[in-house]
Amino acid sequence: VAPLRMADVYNDGSMDEKNKKSIVHNSKEGDKGVVLCRCWKSATFPLCSGAHKKHNEECGDQVGPVIVKVVSAVE
Amino acid sequence: VAPLRMADVYNDGSMDEKNKKSIVHNSKEGDKGVVLCRCWKSATFPLCSGAHKKHNEECGDQVGPVIVKVVSAVE
Ligand code: FES
Ligand code: FES
Repeated sequence: VAPLRMADVYNDGSMDEKNKKSIVHNSKEGDKGVVLCRCWKSATFPLCSGAHKKHNEECGDQVGPVIVKVVSAVE
Repeated sequence: VAPLRMADVYNDGSMDEKNKKSIVHNSKEGDKGVVLCRCWKSATFPLCSGAHKKHNEECGDQVGPVIVKVVSAVE
């Protein structure tokens, strides 16, 4: 059960502050994981803030976050 | 240095197969990490295939993947 560091969040275009954030997440057993925005409208980018719901309603899209978690140590 | 499992990739709308994939990534020291698509055009979704470059050119967007890695064990 290791800390999960979201590192090197990047954007192939111009690198604005929003996209240079790194976040450390301390993962533990049964943890929900890190919920990462893929709709680009999060108020807490790069984390998901739930803003995809409104985005989907407005745009007829069906996008949502990806969840990443650490499951176990390598032997 | 734990394996990184990308679990519960989801989509708030209809859940198609594309969005239900789970991937196990064995992280190790100095690892580049898991490169996750946020442009929705990857050929290897939910992983980034580099397709965001063409997307950005065509759409005038500046989106790209997020990279997640395990950096160390919790004390
Ligand atoms: S706010 Fe963007 S995916 Fe949830
Ligand atoms: S292919 Fe989608 S972000 Fe790279």
